[in-house]
Amino acid sequence: MQSIDLNCDMGEAFGNYPMPNDELLMDHITSANIACGFHAGDPDVMQRTVAMAVKKGVAIGAHPGLPDLQGFGRREMKIGAKEAYQITLYQIGALSGFVNAAHGKLAHVKPHGALYNMAAKDVGLAKAIAEAVHDFDPSLVLYGLANSEMITWAKQLGLKTASEVFADRTYQDDGSLTPRKQANALITDEAVSLKQVLMMVKQQQVISTNNKTVPLTAETLCLHGDGAQAVEFAALIRKKLKSEGIIIKAPGNP
Amino acid sequence: MQSIDLNCDMGEAFGNYPMPNDELLMDHITSANIACGFHAGDPDVMQRTVAMAVKKGVAIGAHPGLPDLQGFGRREMKIGAKEAYQITLYQIGALSGFVNAAHGKLAHVKPHGALYNMAAKDVGLAKAIAEAVHDFDPSLVLYGLANSEMITWAKQLGLKTASEVFADRTYQDDGSLTPRKQANALITDEAVSLKQVLMMVKQQQVISTNNKTVPLTAETLCLHGDGAQAVEFAALIRKKLKSEGIIIKAPGNP
Amino acid sequence: MQSIDLNCDMGEAFGNYPMPNDELLMDHITSANIACGFHAGDPDVMQRTVAMAVKKGVAIGAHPGLPDLQGFGRREMKIGAKEAYQITLYQIGALSGFVNAAHGKLAHVKPHGALYNMAAKDVGLAKAIAEAVHDFDPSLVLYGLANSEMITWAKQLGLKTASEVFADRTYQDDGSLTPRKQANALITDEAVSLKQVLMMVKQQQVISTNNKTVPLTAETLCLHGDGAQAVEFAALIRKKLKSEGIIIKAPGNP
Amino acid sequence: MQSIDLNCDMGEAFGNYPMPNDELLMDHITSANIACGFHAGDPDVMQRTVAMAVKKGVAIGAHPGLPDLQGFGRREMKIGAKEAYQITLYQIGALSGFVNAAHGKLAHVKPHGALYNMAAKDVGLAKAIAEAVHDFDPSLVLYGLANSEMITWAKQLGLKTASEVFADRTYQDDGSLTPRKQANALITDEAVSLKQVLMMVKQQQVISTNNKTVPLTAETLCLHGDGAQAVEFAALIRKKLKSEGIIIKAPGNP
Repeated sequence: MQSIDLNCDMGEAFGNYPMPNDELLMDHITSANIACGFHAGDPDVMQRTVAMAVKKGVAIGAHPGLPDLQGFGRREMKIGAKEAYQITLYQIGALSGFVNAAHGKLAHVKPHGALYNMAAKDVGLAKAIAEAVHDFDPSLVLYGLANSEMITWAKQLGLKTASEVFADRTYQDDGSLTPRKQANALITDEAVSLKQVLMMVKQQQVISTNNKTVPLTAETLCLHGDGAQAVEFAALIRKKLKSEGIIIKAPGNP
Repeated sequence: MQSIDLNCDMGEAFGNYPMPNDELLMDHITSANIACGFHAGDPDVMQRTVAMAVKKGVAIGAHPGLPDLQGFGRREMKIGAKEAYQITLYQIGALSGFVNAAHGKLAHVKPHGALYNMAAKDVGLAKAIAEAVHDFDPSLVLYGLANSEMITWAKQLGLKTASEVFADRTYQDDGSLTPRKQANALITDEAVSLKQVLMMVKQQQVISTNNKTVPLTAETLCLHGDGAQAVEFAALIRKKLKSEGIIIKAPGNP
Repeated sequence: MQSIDLNCDMGEAFGNYPMPNDELLMDHITSANIACGFHAGDPDVMQRTVAMAVKKGVAIGAHPGLPDLQGFGRREMKIGAKEAYQITLYQIGALSGFVNAAHGKLAHVKPHGALYNMAAKDVGLAKAIAEAVHDFDPSLVLYGLANSEMITWAKQLGLKTASEVFADRTYQDDGSLTPRKQANALITDEAVSLKQVLMMVKQQQVISTNNKTVPLTAETLCLHGDGAQAVEFAALIRKKLKSEGIIIKAPGNP
Repeated sequence: MQSIDLNCDMGEAFGNYPMPNDELLMDHITSANIACGFHAGDPDVMQRTVAMAVKKGVAIGAHPGLPDLQGFGRREMKIGAKEAYQITLYQIGALSGFVNAAHGKLAHVKPHGALYNMAAKDVGLAKAIAEAVHDFDPSLVLYGLANSEMITWAKQLGLKTASEVFADRTYQDDGSLTPRKQANALITDEAVSLKQVLMMVKQQQVISTNNKTVPLTAETLCLHGDGAQAVEFAALIRKKLKSEGIIIKAPGNP
């Protein structure tokens, strides 16, 4: 039987700045990637977000990012492999403190933003991040872009992986995401988005912007947490997938 | 047989700014309190400092501080008990990532600077810090000022504690440290300092600035890591203590 | 003829985190206190907020805060007078860069949050902040709590001042604000709030929580920028004041 | 008569972390590029460094960097032109506060580290930084790498410029610096270094690593402030240049 994980970036509030959708989204997702204080999040937000995830039975992941709060971790920084290893390990550790204290279980790690994108292509960064995850706990699942160096090198190290696909992004012939700068990068029509999700999940393939059918491992689907429609869309997609007989569950869960 | 732990704040470098004594000091101390990135330290410094401590067999402790890099964690901030709990847990977790990856063992926690001083007197903060340590790992030893609220409430929670004494600070009749603002707060004469240390360790008492003999539990002695004489003084005090037949060891060690 | 300034804290967004009311509020206020990057705000937010204020003809002020982004500058920090001087000067300077580039004019300074509250009572901090403002530009108006040390020492230095009053806070017999911890600190009934504002502006007095009539210099009224009703309330209060024949204008304006 | 400016990065201490050479170096240089709190420096360091420069009659420049304290502004960040404009303007403004308060005069701006290097090649960033300097004060001198986009676009905007050359770096045939990764990037022999400086200053040319004679505008020479030999080398080079009849002075000075 087919299954998919629904993941969402959570805990990206900071200090006085709220992220009001988090609590509602927890009802629809199976994996929460929780910010660890570098690109977003702070010790208070982390504690509250972990508590929500534990209460709702959502799988908890660390969501380490670049040390750039103003840029929300979305601006590329030229860091070396050693630095990538160190900031990943630091942030996983920091989140794990709250997870342990809440009697939860850290299940996965998903790099954030520019760190995620750089590690998709840069072998050195991909290896370093995989090593940090492995050195922290080799039973953690590493989430990365489907068809990316991140997934390749995490597997190489013996880590379990979850290949991530996107509902609202178009794909190139080589299975990579269409860069955001290009006009056709985003899917804004909800029906088109839903159709793409179903094809990815059920057939493990996607239609590229060149109209080519491209194979794609779809193990976890990224849902966006911000925006007015985020909660509604998460509920809709979950319902639709269920109605198609697809099991919604986190990768580590039975 | 009498014993004492020699602890020192370590890993307080940051980015481009070195703390050159750290490596040499590791030869003389038994416990390293490693900064966790809030008042000093960064992921790179933490990894290197943990590696040194593991290599030298020095007991590793987390040294959480207030989120104030410019003030080096020495400026009091009005934080609530919940915030104290959260920043302590975050920092212990962050350091533990590096300790695990280096196949080391986190042995203790010692709050830093203003957090240490506030927790010595403020019951709410003392309880919160003790709870964070306990929630992370109830087998950790909590280091705090001898005769302080920190020690009282850590014991109350069932934590092992290490009562800390100072070689270069004078004491009041009630066993508290003479405030730094007072002229006689610091002991600058090395011989006087050594004599005070020996009395504290061997007789578990100290002579106050009023010439009163005050009982004091001396389980760990704080050595300062900065300054030109730091390494020499650490070597000297260790040699002196040994020559008096005192065992130098970390609290958790057999 | 009577007049009052309507001021509001502006530019308190940060990076990815918006403050959506700012643009709308600019239509109703006469003075904008713009955050300078320490407690909130960043170079991008500052540029955009200055541009809005210039466009709408609103008087521009620097709104320096404590270096505590997570705490939004609301957590007291034990800083000395020298540090208060330095962080005030730094932040005024930083904002002035954007004001000059936008061909605007820096008109005033209003300390933020805990810095504002500490400077209301602490003579050393009040003097230091006044000196920083004076050293930057002696023609700036310094906004401070009515009846506070801040106002006293700013006048002493020859600065123009604007005594600030609050629509939604109750007052004590000595003219100070009722501390937020007390149950009756806030006025939540809009009608009561409006009545208090009119009395303060027209009669330069207020009724304390003990039912005493207390004299109070009301030169600028603080409007809150956050919350769903913020824009509406600003519009309402402006309309009400105008209908009573009161001139709404910034202190430096003719 | 020939002249050269001797500039040095100053005020790169932070909080508890000193930069002990600054005061001594002030005796040998003619221009101080003072860090503004993003890559190094803080309000206290800035105030003290400005005071030193005013006292010694050294020309004061703002030294804006990327917002990356841990990386000391040396890690490239993908920022857009607008962000480069904003962080430059913010930092110039912040420093100018201290300069005004000390009755000094802001004379120049020199971007730092990765920002300097990126602006040497990236037209968008070069233009943006030049505009920020121009918008702040069109009489400021902009320091940039000789033969770089930074210099080209600053001139284009009508700014005065100072083309910077290096004593301890080798040059390529096109007049660019040999990248640091290459083995022959640095000149470690003091005599070779001195010889190169004299040729650059007196003949406005340099011998490239390929043994080609390359024309080079040498208006300001960068001296490094860190390292044990920094002060000695600065004194030596100043003496040598003077003995050759070269006038040592800041670009803006008569």
